[in-house]
This record gives sequence, structure tokens and C-alpha cells, in this order.
Amino acid sequence: MKAEPHSALHLAQRARLASRALGIADTARKDHALEAIAKAVTDARGPILEANALDLADGRKASLTDALLDRLALDGERLEGLAAAVLAVRALPDPVGEITSTTRRPNGLTVQKVRIPLGVILMIYESRPNVTTDAAALCLKSGNAVILRGGKEALRTNLALRQAIVTGLEVARLPADAVLLVETPDRELLLELLKQEELIDLAIPRGGEGLIRFVAQNARIPVVKHYKGVCHVFLHQSADAKKAVDIVVNAKAQRPGVCNAAECLLVDEGALALLPAVARALVAERVELRCCPRSLAVLRREGIAAVPAGADDWGREFLDRILAVRVVAGIDEALEHIARYGSLHTEAIVAEDKVASTRFVHEVVASAVIVNASTRFNDGGELGLGAEIGISTSKVHAFGPMGLAELTAQKFVVLGDGQVRGG
Amino acid sequence: MKAEPHSALHLAQRARLASRALGIADTARKDHALEAIAKAVTDARGPILEANALDLADGRKASLTDALLDRLALDGERLEGLAAAVLAVRALPDPVGEITSTTRRPNGLTVQKVRIPLGVILMIYESRPNVTTDAAALCLKSGNAVILRGGKEALRTNLALRQAIVTGLEVARLPADAVLLVETPDRELLLELLKQEELIDLAIPRGGEGLIRFVAQNARIPVVKHYKGVCHVFLHQSADAKKAVDIVVNAKAQRPGVCNAAECLLVDEGALALLPAVARALVAERVELRCCPRSLAVLRREGIAAVPAGADDWGREFLDRILAVRVVAGIDEALEHIARYGSLHTEAIVAEDKVASTRFVHEVVASAVIVNASTRFNDGGELGLGAEIGISTSKVHAFGPMGLAELTAQKFVVLGDGQVRGG
Repeated sequence: MKAEPHSALHLAQRARLASRALGIADTARKDHALEAIAKAVTDARGPILEANALDLADGRKASLTDALLDRLALDGERLEGLAAAVLAVRALPDPVGEITSTTRRPNGLTVQKVRIPLGVILMIYESRPNVTTDAAALCLKSGNAVILRGGKEALRTNLALRQAIVTGLEVARLPADAVLLVETPDRELLLELLKQEELIDLAIPRGGEGLIRFVAQNARIPVVKHYKGVCHVFLHQSADAKKAVDIVVNAKAQRPGVCNAAECLLVDEGALALLPAVARALVAERVELRCCPRSLAVLRREGIAAVPAGADDWGREFLDRILAVRVVAGIDEALEHIARYGSLHTEAIVAEDKVASTRFVHEVVASAVIVNASTRFNDGGELGLGAEIGISTSKVHAFGPMGLAELTAQKFVVLGDGQVRGG
Repeated sequence: MKAEPHSALHLAQRARLASRALGIADTARKDHALEAIAKAVTDARGPILEANALDLADGRKASLTDALLDRLALDGERLEGLAAAVLAVRALPDPVGEITSTTRRPNGLTVQKVRIPLGVILMIYESRPNVTTDAAALCLKSGNAVILRGGKEALRTNLALRQAIVTGLEVARLPADAVLLVETPDRELLLELLKQEELIDLAIPRGGEGLIRFVAQNARIPVVKHYKGVCHVFLHQSADAKKAVDIVVNAKAQRPGVCNAAECLLVDEGALALLPAVARALVAERVELRCCPRSLAVLRREGIAAVPAGADDWGREFLDRILAVRVVAGIDEALEHIARYGSLHTEAIVAEDKVASTRFVHEVVASAVIVNASTRFNDGGELGLGAEIGISTSKVHAFGPMGLAELTAQKFVVLGDGQVRGG
């Protein structure tokens, strides 16, 4: 098939071709490229910050919110952070070629499972420019070509970053098409990309609900969704008072705008005595408490600020200094609430009773189930993956933080000396 | 949402509800159900064979091919085989709850990865009734509810088999909805099922190209494709003569109608001397050879029956006693041919030279890459998985034979004693 230049098909064909060279490139060459990319990003500080200033100016004209502008903004320090993250990926072990199992069959065949790159990855994201360099570095290290489809509000910044990435690839004599950037980030081209099932192996959307739904509904290629985090903390009747305060405050207030922040506190009726201290600590962190009637009554009696929860506050991702609070009759009701309103992201229990925490771990379906620690630990760096391309809330392929290993497939390698099959 | 009875939404809701009970059922209960299902299938021999006879009679009226009728047909012996396969799954270790890794973080957190069921699986297949019991057993053992969508030509047989399965589930007091059967196997209902992204976790299509394309193009739920096998055997110049004959004959002729049978023989020009003996052995097995000009000349000179290959014989899945034969200039051209025409299923090399076989293993992308053994070994039983629900040619989630482990996801379990996150 002959492709129009700059069409989705053309982009995908270029990426596919590059992926073959990248898939068999050795670790030294890929690490060399990552070093060169980090250096090129630092060297191109001037043009990158200039491009970012233009994006920001347009963003202000287009009345983007302050939160969005902040995500988009780069400065010298943030740019150094981007380069440092690329070097951190360089330092991770190469997953490609890893033999994850070896068995010997009764007929003498040796059967291995070996990690290989997925091939071509389509990364779909919004305004954060760090995703451009992070995704490029993770895909490169794992031997995958990547098509980056960032938001149009960050286009000039991304073009400048991609230029630096290409410089690095060329230094290591790897194909420039190993990291492609969509230069027309409209929905039409995205739609076409999502249909290239013969050429693209996986789409990873990260961002708002609308974007992820669009991708999921229109893709013919496999999608690993990085969806919302409606994370709960359940205070069991056996909860330790200090752990309860520390964990709930950290889960909600340490960084309220991220997907692993808590959105709802479930309080066992046997743990109601802990609620006032937890609530006071939250209010001291400027958190608004949206309460069920029972918890509201407790807090008002204690003179602690709280408002009634609305019906739509259960299962809601506030991404803000707001926490829903509900009293439950015990662990059964807590499990029921989480099964109904959770988003498969992160669920935590605070409990000293091992029977309760074991049951919680066993029965809760979520990418991370946490006992006596903050929901904020559901993160690739914190869980020991080194770096992550996002946190999957799809159970298929990868569930939870996706690191380098989750950007690979495994093939069977079968070594024989003439075996044939009988039955 | 209120669902019409027998609608796709209603089926999916029932399966989702059953999956919660099944997901936390212990191994003893699941094994009890599998035993009871095997017994119920044997006990219901009469009604199952009667239903099958009606399906076969309709199939003959509808002029189904003999091959299709043979796949559909059950007799006493085949039925015992179905029950025995259920017991074989019972004997496999339960993947659910398996802790696949445990690490300790510097802050004292214990991080585990634990296998959990995927949830609800939609199995889409054609006429073989053994898929009904195999898929039910594999999904049950791995804690998944399953919606079986078999072919309409096997509907009465499948209904009778499902009745036996329900009997077994009820003996073990597991929900009957853990194994559902689509009673109206038309494309409209399938289309609706493929949209139930909130309720169904994975679709597994097995069967003809048309069916798989339909599923891939219309699904909003994740799909692991079980697609065609265009498998090559490459005879390197260092190939051992006896291994070459044994492996090529077994790969093509032992069971020509299956996906891991060879469809194309690539002969290194340095191995041309081996071709006549290999070709004679194939012809003795009634295999038609469709040859490139160079191999055709060699075979005609030797008086061995052969015909010229057409342009569409490369990359073609014959599923029959036909083999394409092509001479290549060396391993580079063989790798190029496989990259262009292979289907990511199974690729084999016959070579004594370790440099060549290592390079083949490193560079070929396929679910199984095989050295000095038959392509027919790409099979769950042969590779040690115990049993398989099919062979995936998608790299995402599972690549190659899908056994019990591939029917699970892994969640992170994080055990702390009050840890909160700093940065």
C-alpha cells in the first residue's frame, strides 16, 4: 500500500520499519542513544524554552486553566529534570533478551520464554512535555519504536524536544523514525492511527476521561488504558490511631491532583472513635470533607468543618482537596462499596487485625491493594519498577504501573536436536 | 441500567456477578466443580449425542463440508475425551493467588505481585464442541466467568454440554452463571457483547479469518487474537540431512490442517543438496510442492513431482497437504521472507551452526521460534502449560499458547506498617 506523506499510514509504516532495527539493537547502542538524548535536551535548552514560551503564550490567549499552564510550563530546572529522567532509564536493566523461564521437556526439548519488544507503541497524552521524553526513553530502552501524539497546546515544545531526541538517536546511529511525533494532533489523524492494526502493536492513552473514551471506542489496535483513580482508604475497627491519621492525610493531601490520591474514606463503625482526629488533621491541610449522615453527625458534634455528601460524590475523582467520607457497618460493606465505586486503581486498608487485612487483600480487585500504607505508593518508582510510562487500570497485559518489562512481550524459544511430534 | 432478558447486557451482567463469587472461590471448590462437570458430561452421554446427531443432520442438509462435519461430530469416545480433558485441567495447579514476586523496598514496604482472575471472558469460536468444555474448564480453574459464543451449527450440542456443566457447578455450589452460553449465535448479539467494556474483560476469538476480523474490528473490549499460522521451516546450509527430512515432514504432514503446521519451506542455496531427499519424503506423504523456479528446476531434474508456485502462495495458510518451497540466498533472505510473509505464529530453523541458529532466534519475531525441532511443538501441552485455550498471535497480554496463567492478571499487594510518601 502506498501511503500519503504525513498520513497515519505513512507514520505507522515508518515506525514499523524503524522498530525492526531497534528490536535487535544491543543494550550498549540503546544506552549510548539515551546518553546522547539527555545531552541533546540539555544542549537545546534555548530553543526548547523558546518553543515552550510560545506554547504558553498561546495557551494563555486560549484561556487554559492555571493548572494546565503549570503542567505545560518548562524552565531550566524542569528541563534538567527531563534529562535526568532519561539518564535514569539508561541506568535500568535492559528487559529485551531476558530469559524469564527455562524448562526441559521429557522429550529433551529446552523451552525458554524470552522478552522481546512489543514493536510499535502509540503514546497518546495531553499537555505534560515530560511525557515526551519519558515515553521516548522507556520505549527506546525496551526496543520499541514509538509514535508520540501529545496535545496540540504543547506542539511546539514537543517538536523541539523531538528534535533533541533525533539528535541523540543519530549520534548512536539508530533510526530517527524510532521516535516519531504527530505534527497534526487532531482527532482525524488519531482516528486513522488507531486503525493501523497491522503496523501498531499497542496504544497507551493517558489523560482525561474524554480522550481515553475516544481511544477505547475507536481503536482496532490493543489499548492499555490509564484511567481515573477513585481510590479508597478503609479504616478497620482494628486500625492503629496514628497510622490512620498519617495514612489518610498523606493519601489525600500530599498531592491531591494525582490518580493515586485518595478520594473516599470508609470508616468502620467500630473505628468511629478515630474519625475526629483524622478529620481534624485533614481540615488542617485545607481538605473539604463531604460526609454521609452518620459521619457528618460525629464531626458536627465535635465542631469540625464538614458538609453533606451528594449522591454523585461516591465514586467521584475529585483530584482536589476534597474527600468523601462514609461510615460502613464493617468490612463486608466496605468491600461492597469498593466493588461498586472503585476504579480498579488503588485501594488501602488500615488494620492491625490480620484476618481483616488478609481478607481485604484477597477480595479487592485493584491494580494495587495496600495494607497500612498510603495509596500514594502505587507508582512505578515507589514499587521498584524504576520508571513508569503510566498506571494501567486495564487488567489485560499490564495492571498497575507499567515499567520496561510491561513494554515487552515474551516469545517461546524451543531448542531441540531433531525432535518431531508423535501424537 | 436495566437489561432486557437474553440481551448482551443482561448476559454480561450475569457473568460479571458470577465472576465475583468465582474469583474468591478456593481451589478445592473449583476442583470439586471440575470433577462434577466431568462426571455430568459422561452421565449425559445420551442427550449430548442425541443433540449432536440433530446438529449433524442439519449440517448435512446445509451442505457443510466433510471437514466441518468431522469437527462437529461427537461419539462415545470423543465424549470421554472431553470429560478427560476437564479432569486434566482439574489436575493443574491453581494460578489464582500465586505470588509471582516479592521484594522489599528501602522504606520497609513489602511489594508482592499476586495472580488474580481477569474477571469475565468472552470466548468466540466455531464448530468444535470440545472448545465448549475446554474453555469452561480453563476459565473455571482460573477463577473467570465465561460467556461461550460457539457456532450456530453446534448450538444443540453446546446447549446439552452447557447443561452438564451447570449440573457440575451446582454440585459444587458455584453460580450457574459462571459458564454462560449464547443461545442466539448471530452477529447482532455478538456485536453488542463486544461493546460491554465495563462488564467483559477479554474476548478470545478462535476460528476463521472472517470471524476474527469481525471481532477485532468491532470490539471495544480487549481482544487476544488466535489468528492464522503461516509457519516456515528454514533449512540452513549447516542443516543435518536426517533432521531436515524428519522435521519438515513432521511439520507439514503429521497434521496438515492445524495452525502450527508448516506452510513454506525455505532452502538455503548452500543446502540445496538436501532438497531432493526432503521432497521425496514429502511426496511420499502425498504433499504437493509449489516451488520457486530454482527449487522447481532441482526437483524436475530429479524427477520429483512439483508445480510452480503462484505469487499468492507465499504467506498463504494452506491447511492442507500443500507446501510452498523457495530457495533463498542465505539467512538474511530467509529472515527477510519470514518478516514479510510470516504470521507471528511459529518459525523453525534446521541448522547445526550455532551462530546461525542464535541469530535466527534473536531476530525472528514469532510466538515460538524453534531450532532443530518441528513447528508442531508450538502447543500448550507440548510446551508444558498443561492445557491451552488457544495460541495467541497478538503480542499484547499473551503471545503463543495461552494456558491458565495467561487467563490471569497480576495485582500489586503492598504490605506496610504505617508508611507514607515523602516526595
